[in-house]
Amino acid sequence: MAHASSDALPALRSYLRTTAEIASCSSLLEWDLETYMPATGAEHRGRQLELLAGFVHDRATSGQLGELIEEAARTPEAQEEESPAAADLRETRREYDRQRKLPRRLVEELAKLTAEGRMAWVAAKRANDFGLFRPFLERIVALKREEAAAVGYEDHPYDALLGYYEPGETAAGLSKLFAPLRDRLADLVRRVVARSPAPLDDFLARGAPAAAQEAFSRKVAAEIGYDFAAGRLDLTAHPFCSTPGPSDSRLTTRWNEAAFLDGFYSVLHEAGHGIYEQGLPKEAWGTPCGQAASYGVHESQSRLWENFVGRSLPFWRRYAPLARECFPSAMRGVSVEALHASVNVVQPSFIRIEADEATYNLHIFLRFELELAMLSGDLAAADLPGAWNEAFRGMFDLTPPDDARGCLQDIHWSMGSVGYFPTYTLGNLYAAQLYAAARRELGDLDTRVARGEFAPLLQWLRERVHRHGKRYLPRRLVELATGEALDSSALLRHLEGRFSELYGI
Amino acid sequence: MAHASSDALPALRSYLRTTAEIASCSSLLEWDLETYMPATGAEHRGRQLELLAGFVHDRATSGQLGELIEEAARTPEAQEEESPAAADLRETRREYDRQRKLPRRLVEELAKLTAEGRMAWVAAKRANDFGLFRPFLERIVALKREEAAAVGYEDHPYDALLGYYEPGETAAGLSKLFAPLRDRLADLVRRVVARSPAPLDDFLARGAPAAAQEAFSRKVAAEIGYDFAAGRLDLTAHPFCSTPGPSDSRLTTRWNEAAFLDGFYSVLHEAGHGIYEQGLPKEAWGTPCGQAASYGVHESQSRLWENFVGRSLPFWRRYAPLARECFPSAMRGVSVEALHASVNVVQPSFIRIEADEATYNLHIFLRFELELAMLSGDLAAADLPGAWNEAFRGMFDLTPPDDARGCLQDIHWSMGSVGYFPTYTLGNLYAAQLYAAARRELGDLDTRVARGEFAPLLQWLRERVHRHGKRYLPRRLVELATGEALDSSALLRHLEGRFSELYGI
Repeated sequence: MAHASSDALPALRSYLRTTAEIASCSSLLEWDLETYMPATGAEHRGRQLELLAGFVHDRATSGQLGELIEEAARTPEAQEEESPAAADLRETRREYDRQRKLPRRLVEELAKLTAEGRMAWVAAKRANDFGLFRPFLERIVALKREEAAAVGYEDHPYDALLGYYEPGETAAGLSKLFAPLRDRLADLVRRVVARSPAPLDDFLARGAPAAAQEAFSRKVAAEIGYDFAAGRLDLTAHPFCSTPGPSDSRLTTRWNEAAFLDGFYSVLHEAGHGIYEQGLPKEAWGTPCGQAASYGVHESQSRLWENFVGRSLPFWRRYAPLARECFPSAMRGVSVEALHASVNVVQPSFIRIEADEATYNLHIFLRFELELAMLSGDLAAADLPGAWNEAFRGMFDLTPPDDARGCLQDIHWSMGSVGYFPTYTLGNLYAAQLYAAARRELGDLDTRVARGEFAPLLQWLRERVHRHGKRYLPRRLVELATGEALDSSALLRHLEGRFSELYGI
Repeated sequence: MAHASSDALPALRSYLRTTAEIASCSSLLEWDLETYMPATGAEHRGRQLELLAGFVHDRATSGQLGELIEEAARTPEAQEEESPAAADLRETRREYDRQRKLPRRLVEELAKLTAEGRMAWVAAKRANDFGLFRPFLERIVALKREEAAAVGYEDHPYDALLGYYEPGETAAGLSKLFAPLRDRLADLVRRVVARSPAPLDDFLARGAPAAAQEAFSRKVAAEIGYDFAAGRLDLTAHPFCSTPGPSDSRLTTRWNEAAFLDGFYSVLHEAGHGIYEQGLPKEAWGTPCGQAASYGVHESQSRLWENFVGRSLPFWRRYAPLARECFPSAMRGVSVEALHASVNVVQPSFIRIEADEATYNLHIFLRFELELAMLSGDLAAADLPGAWNEAFRGMFDLTPPDDARGCLQDIHWSMGSVGYFPTYTLGNLYAAQLYAAARRELGDLDTRVARGEFAPLLQWLRERVHRHGKRYLPRRLVELATGEALDSSALLRHLEGRFSELYGI
């Protein structure tokens, strides 16, 4: 085997960076689309994004990239196990192979279908009429099966789709990981719900001016470590975090003036994403080692700050005084303990994005199983509403009153995002295991949180997670960070501990 | 000569539209750079803009475009004098020839340098330290000289740059047009200043909350015809209007809470630009006939609304009641007549963008002459502060107290915009001639303005100016619109009339 040129790796990385630079223009255009663009700009924005997507696709599937990969793969650095070079090659090759295997016709059909599907989903949800969305879902599932067949898989077509969001994961691996969690969580929820009355949380429905919510949220987000000097916070309909450049990671939110903490928790969540993006190694920007490890790992960072830190008693010991300052009326007569209990009320409900920490994962398992069944062909799209409601009854002993609060509630399938939902629960699992390890290693984390000393935790996450980018597959990353293989015990301990204490069970 | 295919013109226009779509991505990136981007994002933004500029340059200089031009030039439509097709060919060919002469390296270097230069200018102006900006200015002037040499010129390197902003104009042509204006204006200013005391305008230094200024400005901008549903108003350091798509034209401004009308006049100015953009024919978007005729014609539209309409007595008859509502404290005891006089006070001052209508053009002549000297090599960038101050003294008998109020006040050179300043005075000249013609044709324009009936004037501008895009060269457009060749008589009549009356001279 001929020895590769010493320029091979830099040449590959430079090629990848240029592609990422084009894609980062799309990020900014999309951020603007969701924040400031006048509605009349939508048609033109669609053409701009299509054009840039075409440039990116051409570069991502070019013969030139194939040659750069082959050349770089022959370098000594790429042979070293778990080296950054090996990771760059592994990730670049996976994505290149995947893109090359997708027929152009399929990519274009999916783009068109999901653009229309998204509109149909909006209409169907608004009209509470699954029939409006059904034909699109049928075609989307059919095309995703085609996609899976084109990409290839060993065991289940789901694996070909899941692997895009969470490299290294399979349906079988997830089923094994989720099974004990499912049983224990269902049991926990039953026991908690039996302990009525639940803690009072009616004061969460008290309102506060958007400006006060913004002041509070900005202060907290900055204190946990989100760098506003390299970021922003803007308004949008559906909050997200966007990173249009290596030193430019932006949060978005919406304020609900009728519920004074809604927007805050959304900011805390997005700030977790933003903090991760701000901690990725800038010198590797645009290459795999400069990118987030996976969707699940990204979600672990948002969940860690939102739930593990932000719904803890020490956190509210720290921030209740500021909350009283910002929300004098909403906070009247509310003790720290009552506040802590109220943001942790467990209550089975229909809507995933409104779910508490204990029931949340059950919503995910339901979607995971339905996705598997649709992908394997065991469940026809037409039968989704019935299957959804039956599974929901089995899980929560409740029947969704309509499809808008049932199988039509999420946007994901309409966008062709099949295999995405499990990354939310993976995020919870990673977060739990990471937080438990940080707690072991950093000593009295609760006291630090109660004092607003977040730097040690942030530093620990920077060191163990952020700086590695995609160097390790997610499970390996968590194992290296925590010293233990991924399992569900840390999340169960966290949830059982938190809710046993709060509910006295 | 073979007959061209009937597809030749559509093919050329489709090619131009795609190029414009890429360029429109840059517009949005630049808008964001000036409004919302964190400062830390500057370096990456520079790379993004450089990359897109490269794509645009490739398309704008491709052999394919050359062939499309040649093919389209042979169509019968392109032979018709002053037809849209002839204009599309004339403008496309001029820009193609110019671009083909610019080395790719130069284009990319300029894009990157000016992105950094803008940030350096901001820092230099803030710190009042020319030294921070000097190295950038030196490199920018050097590159602009390279650009002029590459594009080619007959008489002065300036012509190669000026022609980009104002097709058909030359340094010699401007000097001839400006000379009588310069003398008569200097004389007018002398006579006005001699008539001390000036009308009282100290109440203009009364403050008002930004929110009140915004409410007032939005209301007026909407009433004169700016469509906020297809636009926006955001904050920036140096107000501008940006059009990142055919139905997306955005205004920016800044509020000075210590002077209640400052921001308003800036909005009125930018709204004039936005109204022009909103009136360009959308079906021709991306081709010359869908684009503004020139920078000068663009400026004529902003000046017409800002000065000819917005500083008139009938305008304030209409809007004094709203001003009293929005600014109860600042407007206390201020009559309509006093307000009208105060927004027309003539007072030599240091800052161009704060200058009154009479002295404004003198500021332009100063910059025009310094640009000529820097471009010809007679003036080194390092000597700019001294040369500026000397020229300023010669013109106004005043010495700028520092560079922030001297040669650092404008953003233009930091962006590489050399040859741009004269378009402001051209704008005043076009506006004066257009407004005089509209007044002749529309009958009692003052009464209409006093009633807030702006539609007839807007319609006249749509018909005579906006809908034509680049169909005619600027001087020809003004001649067709007004029935008279361009000269300085209308502007002089306007200024001498307005200030003679106000100052009783």
